[in-house]
Amino acid sequence: MRIFDYFRNTKKETASIAKERLQIIVAHERSQRNQPDYLPKLQQELLAVIRKYVEIEQDDVDVQIDKNGDCSVLELNITLPG
Amino acid sequence: MRIFDYFRNTKKETASIAKERLQIIVAHERSQRNQPDYLPKLQQELLAVIRKYVEIEQDDVDVQIDKNGDCSVLELNITLPG
Repeated sequence: MRIFDYFRNTKKETASIAKERLQIIVAHERSQRNQPDYLPKLQQELLAVIRKYVEIEQDDVDVQIDKNGDCSVLELNITLPG
Repeated sequence: MRIFDYFRNTKKETASIAKERLQIIVAHERSQRNQPDYLPKLQQELLAVIRKYVEIEQDDVDVQIDKNGDCSVLELNITLPG
């Protein structure tokens, strides 16, 4: 899967209420499949950086990690108190 | 602009050579336009986290910040030594 196809295929959100949201997507396209995948480890470190700016509860964070061939994608969806 | 529309509209890359690439997208959808925008400050901190895992030269990083109404998007495109 190409790195940019991932974003095009993202489902459309249907929520209509104005909320404060933060979405972080890290896509790693490797040239060889046997390279280490560090995205799972990145997750907590990224949240630590974001927490310097906004207060985030653990329940406010939805985490997904997808792998498809040589492309790994870490997606963090954070709903902030509006 | 809806937060997810941004990703769908991303232009398709035409490069065909296998490279190691890392793309970080942070999209911040605010409920009110007068809230502070901390994405520009986040940029260097995110790179510092990534540098724990891979060696990145400053020249390898392409940074874009887009604003559209109440949605701000920080995009870091990093080409790694393959």
